[in-house]
This record gives sequence, C-alpha cells and structure tokens, in this order.
Amino acid sequence: MPESYLFSEISRRVSAFKENNPGADIIRMGIGDVTRPLCGAAIEAMHRAVDDEADAASFHGYGPEQGYPFLRDRIAETDYRSRGIDIDADEIFVGDGAKSDLGNFGDILASDCRVAVTDPVYPVYVDTNVMAGRGGAPDGCRHEGIIYLPMTRENGYVPQLPSVRSDVIYLCSPNNPTGTAMTRDELKMWVDYARREGSLILFDSAYEAYIHNPDVPHSIYEIEGARDVAVEFRSFSKTAGFTGIRCGYTVVPRQLTGIGESGERVPLNRLWRRRQCTKFNGASYVSQRAAEATYTAEGRRQIAETIDYYMENARIMRESLAAAGYEVAGGVDSPYVWLKTPEGVSSWDFFDRLLSRVAVVGTPGAGFGACGEGYLRLTAFNTREATREAMERISRL
Amino acid sequence: MPESYLFSEISRRVSAFKENNPGADIIRMGIGDVTRPLCGAAIEAMHRAVDDEADAASFHGYGPEQGYPFLRDRIAETDYRSRGIDIDADEIFVGDGAKSDLGNFGDILASDCRVAVTDPVYPVYVDTNVMAGRGGAPDGCRHEGIIYLPMTRENGYVPQLPSVRSDVIYLCSPNNPTGTAMTRDELKMWVDYARREGSLILFDSAYEAYIHNPDVPHSIYEIEGARDVAVEFRSFSKTAGFTGIRCGYTVVPRQLTGIGESGERVPLNRLWRRRQCTKFNGASYVSQRAAEATYTAEGRRQIAETIDYYMENARIMRESLAAAGYEVAGGVDSPYVWLKTPEGVSSWDFFDRLLSRVAVVGTPGAGFGACGEGYLRLTAFNTREATREAMERISRL
Repeated sequence: MPESYLFSEISRRVSAFKENNPGADIIRMGIGDVTRPLCGAAIEAMHRAVDDEADAASFHGYGPEQGYPFLRDRIAETDYRSRGIDIDADEIFVGDGAKSDLGNFGDILASDCRVAVTDPVYPVYVDTNVMAGRGGAPDGCRHEGIIYLPMTRENGYVPQLPSVRSDVIYLCSPNNPTGTAMTRDELKMWVDYARREGSLILFDSAYEAYIHNPDVPHSIYEIEGARDVAVEFRSFSKTAGFTGIRCGYTVVPRQLTGIGESGERVPLNRLWRRRQCTKFNGASYVSQRAAEATYTAEGRRQIAETIDYYMENARIMRESLAAAGYEVAGGVDSPYVWLKTPEGVSSWDFFDRLLSRVAVVGTPGAGFGACGEGYLRLTAFNTREATREAMERISRL
Repeated sequence: MPESYLFSEISRRVSAFKENNPGADIIRMGIGDVTRPLCGAAIEAMHRAVDDEADAASFHGYGPEQGYPFLRDRIAETDYRSRGIDIDADEIFVGDGAKSDLGNFGDILASDCRVAVTDPVYPVYVDTNVMAGRGGAPDGCRHEGIIYLPMTRENGYVPQLPSVRSDVIYLCSPNNPTGTAMTRDELKMWVDYARREGSLILFDSAYEAYIHNPDVPHSIYEIEGARDVAVEFRSFSKTAGFTGIRCGYTVVPRQLTGIGESGERVPLNRLWRRRQCTKFNGASYVSQRAAEATYTAEGRRQIAETIDYYMENARIMRESLAAAGYEVAGGVDSPYVWLKTPEGVSSWDFFDRLLSRVAVVGTPGAGFGACGEGYLRLTAFNTREATREAMERISRL
C-alpha cells in the first residue's frame, strides 16, 4: 500500500513555492481543519474537568469504554429524541473521533465484504478497507475489489445505486469533498436498497451541523427503516471545533445485525461494544465534559455562531467564484466548495496555477479519486479576511 | 467470541453481597485503576492548554497523528537517551493509551501469525488476536492457535521459551497480573530467541515506573539487539495517573522489519505510521500537554511521590500477607500483589471467602488464564487507610 500522497505532495509544492517566493502571502484554503477557538462553554467545562482531576474526591480514572452516561444521554436526547428520532443512550458509543471509529469499524466486518464507496471519496474509507484486505488488486488509483459510485456534475453529485450487490456502503452527507448533501428522497433510495439487498450503510454525518436545506436529513435515522441497516458516525470536530480535543460518537442501533459464520444474525451493537471494550479505553474525561457543554443552551448558541461564521465564508466563496465564471457545488450545507476547473485544466495544473499566480492553496480533486479529476476543493475554515482576499485574488486571475 | 466475563462476574457477586449486607464496608483491591489525583504540574499544563484552545492565535486543531514533537522529543530524551538507550523521536508514536495501541498493532500483522502469550495474561493480548482470527478453535478458556507460556510459582514466574516457533510474543514486565518483573538476563534470553527465530516481541512496559530492582530493565532496548526485534508499549496511565486523560506511546525502531507477502523485509515503523495516519487523529492536545508536564523537574518529583505512595501500600500488603502465612509474589517492582490461595481453594472460592467474611474484593487469578487458577490479584491503588484496613481484616481471617 503506497504512502498517503495527497497532502504530502501539496505540502511539497507549497514549500517549493515559498522557497522561490519568500515574500508571498500564501492563503491556505486546502485544509479541512477548523481555525476558530473552542466555544466558551466548552472551555469552562474543560477547566472544571481539569480541576476534578486535581482532587481525589472528584478524580475520574478509567471511564466506561462507550463513554460517560452524562454525555451519551445528552446526545440521545438532543441529537435524536428531541428531533423525533428513536435512538437510546445505549446505542451511542463515544469515541475519540469519527476517523478512528470509521477505520476501526472494519474490525467487526468480514474480510471478504464487498465494499462500495462514492468517487470522489474521503480516502479513509478506501484505505482502511485496503488495509483489511478488502481492496483487491490495485488498478491505477482504484482497487478492483471496491465498487466506485461516481458523484460528478453529470449526475448532479447524486451517486446511483450499484449494479453489483454491495455488502457495505459508505455514504457521507454533507459530503467531503464535494460539499453537496443528499435530500431525504435520495437517502431513502439508499435505505430502501440496503433493506432490499441486506447491505450495511456506514453513514458519515460529520458535517450535519452545517446543513441549511430543510430537505436534507441531519441523521440517516430520519429515514424509515434505517435503524435496521445503518450505522451513523458523528464528530464534534467540525460541529464544535474539537479537531485537537478528540471526541466523536458512533450510533449502532440495537436491532442492526450482520451475518455470522454459520449464517446466524449477529447484533452489531454487541459486537462493536466488545471491540471497543477490548481495544479502547474511552475518550478523555476532559474532552467528554467539553462535548457535554456544547449541549447546554449557551454551548448551542456559541457553536452555532462559529458555524455561521464559516458558512458566511462559504457563501462569499460560492458567490465570488460564480461571479468570476466558475462552476461551483457545495458550500450551502457544508463548509466545502467544490470547484470545476476550467475546461481542459487538470486538478493538479489548476492547483499549480492558483498557487503560482495568486498564492492560494486548494486541494486537487484528483486526490479524492478518479472522478475528482477536473475539480478543486476549497474550504471555508479560514478567517473572513483571508477568505475575502483569496476570492479577490482568484477573481482577478 | 464470548462477552468479557471476569469483571462483570466480580461486579455481579459484589452487588449480591451488598444487597445481603447493606451495612458492609467493602474495600476494593481488585481494580487496576489509580485513585490519587493528577500531579500539580499536569493540572497546570492542562489549564494552560485549555486556554490555548480559547484563542484563535494559540488554537491547536489537528496535530500530527504520531504526536506533537514537544512530547516525542521529551520522551526520547528522558525515557531513552538520558538512560543511554538509542531511541529517536521519530521512532515514538504517541497514542491515547497502551490498550488501544496494543490492540491496534495487530492491524499491521499477518492474520496467520503464530502468537505466544504468558499464562496468566492481560486478556487484551489474547482477545484482540482472537478477534483478528489468530485464535484458532476455542479449547476451554484457551485457544488452540495460541501458544501459552506458564508463569507460575513452580517456574519462579519466569516464562520459558516456547517449544513451537512463535512469530509474535507478548511480554509484559513488570507483569500484569503477577506483579513480577523480568531481570536483564531473563529478558536477554527472549531478545536472543527472537533474533534467532525471527520473531517479533511486543513488550508492554506500562508499569516500568514502579521498578525498584536495579536488575530489572525499564526498557527492552536496554538489551543489546532488541531494536531489531521489539516494539515497546508505554502508558502515562499508571506512571502519572492518566487513566481518565488518555495518553500513552509506542516505540517502533526504524530498523525493525516484518516480512511482506513476497518475502521482502517491510519496516514496521513505516507500516505503523501508515496505520495511525489512516485510522487515528492523534491524542488530545490537552492530554499531550499534560504528558509533557510530567517530564519537568517538578512533574518528575510529583509523579515519583504518587508512585511511592502506592508502593508503600504494596509493601504493607506484601508484608502483612506474608506475616499472615500467605505466599505472595510481586509488589516490589509493580503495584500488583499476586497471592497464592490456600491449598485446595480455587481462585473464585477464595474470592468469595474474602468477600463474604471480610468484605475485601480481589481479582480471581483464574480470570487471567488457566495458570492463574489458585491465585488472587490484589492492587496497591487504594488509599493507605483502606489498604491497612484490608490487610488487618485478611490477617484476622
């Protein structure tokens, strides 16, 4: 398996540019990391949690591997039940982030599962399956054992059902990298497919807090029957700026089953709990207290403010780029804007053009898969000033 | 694979006892969790780190997956180079704890590796390999595919070299659960074996901070040639009370290799880095700052004080139990005391006897493997008062 190439290659090209242009004011719009500080409610909660650890009477050592009830109860109530979605605290597993959970979830799946992903795709879905032996032979930037579902302007960024039966389907909505999101009807098509075919959907909704369109579900469990076929992965990273603090959660409904070696139905909730209890010791107590604080009224208000800040950046990006004649997707229900490169210009050539002419760094779409060729991803996570400046530079280009 | 039985069964029996004896003052000596608060240096560092997260200028989002250089440099310098051990910062991978790293390390090993463990054993070594398909058929509380190396009073708790070739050998010294530790010569025997046979040693030294005997190495890399054959797992959990804060590290020397599919040598450092970069996003920034603080002069002094506190408990336990006529091992280089049950009394019967007659809770040795039958594990992590009281009660028994 090759080394991860995308971000190291970007970094190499940016370094070379800097060396040749020491005075250049480079604006980074490629990173998927947040930049705004943590909200006040989380900061206060963390200070209190740290003080708890300073006193034997309030000290917290090993916690439950699946997370403290104080947090799981809040999640179940706020993210699900108050929205009319039937999810209990014992179906929620708090972890140290969606990347870990998405990667580790493969531990409880058979090594010969047939896996489907969209193209372009968040590389973790593919890489972790290749590591687990589910990739089959490499075929250019693809793997023969994996089913790729194109998501391009030609199909309106709506992946179509696979023609080959898939055991496991990764869906990410709002999507990284395209920034587009599935409507209720589009997602229902997938839930119905999974129910019909006996497939498992691994639904990554790390960006749900950015959804503005009322037709876009925040949770796959808003779709009838999804409890029977879907696992949902969420993260506080983009919702509340926890990229450095590490907290996320995974929902595994009680009735969700896989098929065991002798054909018997095996509850995945029990299997995942066994995996987590054996290979994980819970997220940091301090991080869990921070996550809990984002569910207070104050916390809700504060994280919404930060998301609004990023989404105003996204609006500026979408509108400036469209006005400059670019075709853009995303940026309405997600912090990612997916830019079509000019006719005949490849992802990497366009990346080089932006870097060398206006010192703006994006992420070449080709890095996310064959169908990402001809696109560039820009993120709304920079400051307002840098975002405006970058858009002016691109418009002048 | 069955549910983990040991601690849930203990908990069931304790609950039943409490119900029948509502006034009983139960003393828990079974837990492997610390109870003393975090040291002042770590508390102060965490408050500062939390404040960093409150300001955009000092905000830390995603860090390097293998840990921040500020921490890896400190580890390499303090735990290795200052002790004359040749380990660099790029051979150190900071994670969220030894349990995760020990479990996840199997991701980069072949599914048909022949694995050897000691008996009794920390259950994570066995369970994670059974999950990965390396266990073979179950055989009572054992697995046919795994090689068990007895560690009992009969062999002085020194595991003997396996008669069957092993690809991977888990060694834990100071040992959980026996509390005994391998001397330099004993460990050298294993390093030499691994070099001769081409085996990989996974060396768990989570309890190294408790070592008092100068003949017991703190690191396997104190043994010549170990860099070619061993991975070392360490944790701040027992060293500095981080069981709730989550931070540990794994050392994978650059020259350490495995054998790839076509017989080629594959550097495990690169493979583990690829695994961690794909399935992990680094330990919490706040936890890493706390870990860094344990390396300051103040931090060193404070964590040593806490370890001394626990080890004074261990001394009291060893001496009281010996005076009461029990045969004990451990408790010199580790916080665990391993008690031989009276002739003819099983682990669980002795557990029940201590619980029902003097309300003291231990951990039945049989829960750690077939060779743990006839032993009970007691830990030094309780308060001084509770430890003394428990010893008085057992002595009266």
